[in-house]
Amino acid sequence: MIRGLTRAGLGDVGTDERLIALAAAEGFGAVDIDAAGLVGRLGAEGVNGLLRRHGMKIGAIGLPVEWRAGDDEFRAGLAGLTEAAAAARVVGCTSCCTYILPSTDHKPAPFMAAATRRLRVCAQILGAYGIRLGLEFVGPHHLRTAWRFPFIWTMEETLDWIGAIGEPNVGLLLDSFHWHTTGLSALDIERLKPEQIAHVHLNDAPAGPVEEARDNDRLYPGEGSIDLAGFLAALNRIGYRGVVSQEVLLPEAPSEPPERLIARSRAGFDRAFAAAGL
Amino acid sequence: MIRGLTRAGLGDVGTDERLIALAAAEGFGAVDIDAAGLVGRLGAEGVNGLLRRHGMKIGAIGLPVEWRAGDDEFRAGLAGLTEAAAAARVVGCTSCCTYILPSTDHKPAPFMAAATRRLRVCAQILGAYGIRLGLEFVGPHHLRTAWRFPFIWTMEETLDWIGAIGEPNVGLLLDSFHWHTTGLSALDIERLKPEQIAHVHLNDAPAGPVEEARDNDRLYPGEGSIDLAGFLAALNRIGYRGVVSQEVLLPEAPSEPPERLIARSRAGFDRAFAAAGL
Amino acid sequence: MIRGLTRAGLGDVGTDERLIALAAAEGFGAVDIDAAGLVGRLGAEGVNGLLRRHGMKIGAIGLPVEWRAGDDEFRAGLAGLTEAAAAARVVGCTSCCTYILPSTDHKPAPFMAAATRRLRVCAQILGAYGIRLGLEFVGPHHLRTAWRFPFIWTMEETLDWIGAIGEPNVGLLLDSFHWHTTGLSALDIERLKPEQIAHVHLNDAPAGPVEEARDNDRLYPGEGSIDLAGFLAALNRIGYRGVVSQEVLLPEAPSEPPERLIARSRAGFDRAFAAAGL
Amino acid sequence: MIRGLTRAGLGDVGTDERLIALAAAEGFGAVDIDAAGLVGRLGAEGVNGLLRRHGMKIGAIGLPVEWRAGDDEFRAGLAGLTEAAAAARVVGCTSCCTYILPSTDHKPAPFMAAATRRLRVCAQILGAYGIRLGLEFVGPHHLRTAWRFPFIWTMEETLDWIGAIGEPNVGLLLDSFHWHTTGLSALDIERLKPEQIAHVHLNDAPAGPVEEARDNDRLYPGEGSIDLAGFLAALNRIGYRGVVSQEVLLPEAPSEPPERLIARSRAGFDRAFAAAGL
Repeated sequence: MIRGLTRAGLGDVGTDERLIALAAAEGFGAVDIDAAGLVGRLGAEGVNGLLRRHGMKIGAIGLPVEWRAGDDEFRAGLAGLTEAAAAARVVGCTSCCTYILPSTDHKPAPFMAAATRRLRVCAQILGAYGIRLGLEFVGPHHLRTAWRFPFIWTMEETLDWIGAIGEPNVGLLLDSFHWHTTGLSALDIERLKPEQIAHVHLNDAPAGPVEEARDNDRLYPGEGSIDLAGFLAALNRIGYRGVVSQEVLLPEAPSEPPERLIARSRAGFDRAFAAAGL
Repeated sequence: MIRGLTRAGLGDVGTDERLIALAAAEGFGAVDIDAAGLVGRLGAEGVNGLLRRHGMKIGAIGLPVEWRAGDDEFRAGLAGLTEAAAAARVVGCTSCCTYILPSTDHKPAPFMAAATRRLRVCAQILGAYGIRLGLEFVGPHHLRTAWRFPFIWTMEETLDWIGAIGEPNVGLLLDSFHWHTTGLSALDIERLKPEQIAHVHLNDAPAGPVEEARDNDRLYPGEGSIDLAGFLAALNRIGYRGVVSQEVLLPEAPSEPPERLIARSRAGFDRAFAAAGL
Repeated sequence: MIRGLTRAGLGDVGTDERLIALAAAEGFGAVDIDAAGLVGRLGAEGVNGLLRRHGMKIGAIGLPVEWRAGDDEFRAGLAGLTEAAAAARVVGCTSCCTYILPSTDHKPAPFMAAATRRLRVCAQILGAYGIRLGLEFVGPHHLRTAWRFPFIWTMEETLDWIGAIGEPNVGLLLDSFHWHTTGLSALDIERLKPEQIAHVHLNDAPAGPVEEARDNDRLYPGEGSIDLAGFLAALNRIGYRGVVSQEVLLPEAPSEPPERLIARSRAGFDRAFAAAGL
Repeated sequence: MIRGLTRAGLGDVGTDERLIALAAAEGFGAVDIDAAGLVGRLGAEGVNGLLRRHGMKIGAIGLPVEWRAGDDEFRAGLAGLTEAAAAARVVGCTSCCTYILPSTDHKPAPFMAAATRRLRVCAQILGAYGIRLGLEFVGPHHLRTAWRFPFIWTMEETLDWIGAIGEPNVGLLLDSFHWHTTGLSALDIERLKPEQIAHVHLNDAPAGPVEEARDNDRLYPGEGSIDLAGFLAALNRIGYRGVVSQEVLLPEAPSEPPERLIARSRAGFDRAFAAAGL
């Protein structure tokens, strides 16, 4: 597996170039950034040179399409999606991810139908560029009632939805925080095939009842109570060899400088990977 | 448009052969029956001869697949679906219909995902036989709370769901009772293209508040308060030329003999079609 | 049916605004132009005002995607497709068309697979904007051997391909010249449903053996030997109510001024429609 | 990887029960047999008991649908496909395979369109049962001209076709004989992801020019000139863990008894797996 970083939890890192340099210095092999923005500034060759010099890849981009509102908002994002996909392709990134809020103000059944239709279009477009679409189920209990109606939040429901979307290039974004908050175990991961996983997030959670974990109150990997050793070992066992990116959502910006935070991340990854025997 | 009959509301008509004979005698041009059952008894040539002699066609068959429960129940119906489709094809029937209950005991979003996946398989199989799948939205208000969660019941939601299923051979079953109980007008029909309609049901409703209409308390066409003239005229205006089948769900079996009931149906169709200028 | 014009055969008409004015002056109701280009210059409201003033609509846009070469060329067109579709949508145009060359230098079976995959993506994108994709089969015999291998050129093959693409919003572009050069009759049109036709082209061909008709040697409607009355009457009979656009491909630019040529087109349409009893 | 046997090349083995017993006795872990036939005779529990007793699984079933002729022949197989899929599911078999003849008497482009449409229906049906569809490209040069027109025979073309079919559960059947006769190397396998492979066949070929290898003149694994060590090592390297089944097509029935032939197979597998370091 390739260790990766997102910007979440690292404070103000500055440019993508700086993030890449800092991440590489601490042994990370991937960053999740806005590929199209960077390609826009440096050109494809510039980005590829930068990545090569640092032995780094882009782990995943975010899906730049609003699929949770109306059809007009959805359509407004499609030109941008083709451009994001083209940029990702040219720099060798093959994952594009979005998250599923576990509740919604829309009537859930028609919203599911509309979302299925929209994400199929996104998957088709991404597929033309050789890119996978990763869907992240979101576990924290408080979000299940944050909006009017329950939507979906379990891995099982998400896999079934992926089946309903019906495109070959759609998979899970598996986040350790959501794995934890939906009560999953290593056995649940072992039931997956590696190709069902489009991307992985690594985070930790404070000790305490799972029901009380807050989505934006996460800890650095290895600093909390999630069984990250079990999580990573199971991923390794099924043959997942892709990127595992830290994504520490925090209630407020951290006070330490990015260098320190990334060193802390490295220490957490080291601990968790070692505990997993990796 | 071709006038049709289902068995609903006609009491014990007896064999399909008798239904066909009685329907033809009253000027109907179609019956909605179990094509596979009849082909099983008479053979394809027998059925086609019977239909030809009576100037009759089979309007639609029912979808013989349980798509509202679990995947095991769903799979158990697929062999039967191929056989029903083959029988329908051989006797020239090109519509296969199912209805959508407006509420459900399943969590609605995952149920919508599963139902989308299942109906896509059904549509693909039917498509191989040149048969369309018609989805009937069901309007009566009491059914919207008959099960635990709301599902979908409007024409708009159903059209959007058809888009999510994404197969070219899926359309609406448009029933005048549900058109009425969901508060639609002729204008709503005029926004449709004829190919969006896979089948039509004709029924009437007692006078009184729309909210109180009961699904199994319908009237013969022309004996109630629905604007069937507007309904039929709009269908004709957009170019719908398919079958319009009576389907009178009743709280208990009618006491009149089938011959009388079919004559009553004919009178109702005559009135409604005449009022529509057809 | 709505009479329409393309630029083909009209010489140098100048701006789209001029084409629209001249077409409207001769009673045409549609032009097939580059909607995105015009929207780019005038804005959506500008275009809609212009169209409204002239009682005109945009019949169809061309598919701005290279689907006949490699995947790189294909992908390079997708951003433009989303923009073309957005522009078409905003000005009320619902058809986007491309033609199928009847022979190819690619090995035909893998080319068919690649083309199927690519046109499905295009159809999905267009579908998100409520736009149909029309595929034009191309009949002239000399083109069947213009490239190394035969591809497809009959209506039947094209309909079957549309089935293979499998998206609900794909239909035929039916061109009278190709109808003629593939030996079709009014009966073949009568086997179609109107929704299978996404767009229609009207042209004429010189007298002489069908096998010798050259693709770029067409005549104005009504000036040649094609049974346009039969063609139009059949389209009307099946309920086609969309645009019928003239597209006169010529070996060299015509010498008459556009006003004259459009008046000649009008006369041809008048004759053909009258002969069809329309 | 799991070593498997098909009946090809084993002479008259007798019942499936005997094949299973003989295969198990020589250390094989899978047989490719007609699951529906065996379930029909022994019942699902009978088959599962038999497999359990011998530590055996069913590797793959054949696709019981004629997709290379007309639509009538195709439809005639769909009921049987649902039954075969149901039987395979109940005994834990998750692959269903068919082969692609490299030439055809049909015009290749329309045949590719029809075949794409038909195999998509098959894939949808199989997908409902959790079963994958494996497509086997067929390499021997003499078959490329055995029928009138070339179709497809390379791995690249087959992967592209799988993309055109567009269903998530379609992959390759990779046969060492076709890998050899299409001039592929271990590097070509290393470009695959394991999930792109639905099943594997193991065979050997006589020494001599690749162009002269005959499809029905294969050798037992390890008795010929194919680099099976490279083939197996590459499969192992990319993480393929499924069944590898011997399928020795011979010009005439072998004279040795099945026991001997299966012992010979075992010796060949032993040699090839050892040479691959497995």
